[in-house]
Amino acid sequence: MSGTSTRVPQQERSRATQTRLLEATVACLVEHGWSGTTTTVVATQAGVSRGAQLHHYPTKAALVTAAVAHLAERRAEELRAEAKTLPAGPQRLDRVVDLLAAAFTGPLFVAALELWVAARTDRELRAALVPLEARLGREMHRLTVSLLEVDERRPGVREAVQATLDLLRGLGVANLLNDDSTRRAALLTAWKRQLTELLAP
Amino acid sequence: MSGTSTRVPQQERSRATQTRLLEATVACLVEHGWSGTTTTVVATQAGVSRGAQLHHYPTKAALVTAAVAHLAERRAEELRAEAKTLPAGPQRLDRVVDLLAAAFTGPLFVAALELWVAARTDRELRAALVPLEARLGREMHRLTVSLLEVDERRPGVREAVQATLDLLRGLGVANLLNDDSTRRAALLTAWKRQLTELLAP
Repeated sequence: MSGTSTRVPQQERSRATQTRLLEATVACLVEHGWSGTTTTVVATQAGVSRGAQLHHYPTKAALVTAAVAHLAERRAEELRAEAKTLPAGPQRLDRVVDLLAAAFTGPLFVAALELWVAARTDRELRAALVPLEARLGREMHRLTVSLLEVDERRPGVREAVQATLDLLRGLGVANLLNDDSTRRAALLTAWKRQLTELLAP
Repeated sequence: MSGTSTRVPQQERSRATQTRLLEATVACLVEHGWSGTTTTVVATQAGVSRGAQLHHYPTKAALVTAAVAHLAERRAEELRAEAKTLPAGPQRLDRVVDLLAAAFTGPLFVAALELWVAARTDRELRAALVPLEARLGREMHRLTVSLLEVDERRPGVREAVQATLDLLRGLGVANLLNDDSTRRAALLTAWKRQLTELLAP
């Protein structure tokens, strides 16, 4: 009995430690970029001992990919929660595009982009990141289809959803060094009209 | 007289040295990324003395921004030369989109993306890069309008050209870690149809 009762709080403590490490990692990637992110800096920022950090995430590649997976999960949950407040009817598509555009200009996108670019020339990170990115890409696509409440089996729907996500990725990159929000809003107004036509039954 | 005749070859030698340095810089960014690119490595790869390199480009930020500007200029010239071989009629738009998609998945895009991401957290690079990127963005837009032979004063044309370039930037990022060419080709087939409608007088 006492074994069980001490194990449960320890599992909870472990999870809390992991969460602190993962959130410090994303914050560190956003603030200092890939090359300024070290496991030591992250452990310090998270207030976690170096030993505990190494126990949970033995390498920088393990830490950063777990961090991006964790934040992507949290963002997807937030999007699903927001989805419940979305209006029905024609305004729904507008709001979905705005929600997704916010995701593609937020800290998760910036942290993930740091990793994509670093992984291009870092073999260990690339090996860890490629399967994760494939999974997150599929989940983002499915989430978008479900938020838009469209049927992907209809011709053209799949391509229209993909184009929306690729366009938003491009807009996310355009926003890296400048506030591109005015141009983006005008462009998305036109895109929402097009997407409405493309998705119309 | 003799002053002039020695000065001209020296200017030519200087230009040749600069070109070698700039092309080695882009190759280095593509192969090793931002953090693996040092002025010393570039000078060695270019076969240029450290002194000559420092004379032409005293800092890493000066070297890499000059390199991206140089390559962008060369690519724009190539695109203008290709433009002369483009067919008239409906196939022209297809070919223009393909040419631009190739540019957004080629070495210039990869080198520029390395710089954009690094500049986010590097103040000196950012100061050098932001005005250059604004200029290159405007030139790319103008070049696209001219390749497509469309009139930007017509409503919707400007947004359609912008969306094309933002979409291609997103597709360029999607191609960083994987060969995304099959998905990209299918998506662009759909986009070409849409763009034809958007640009129709």
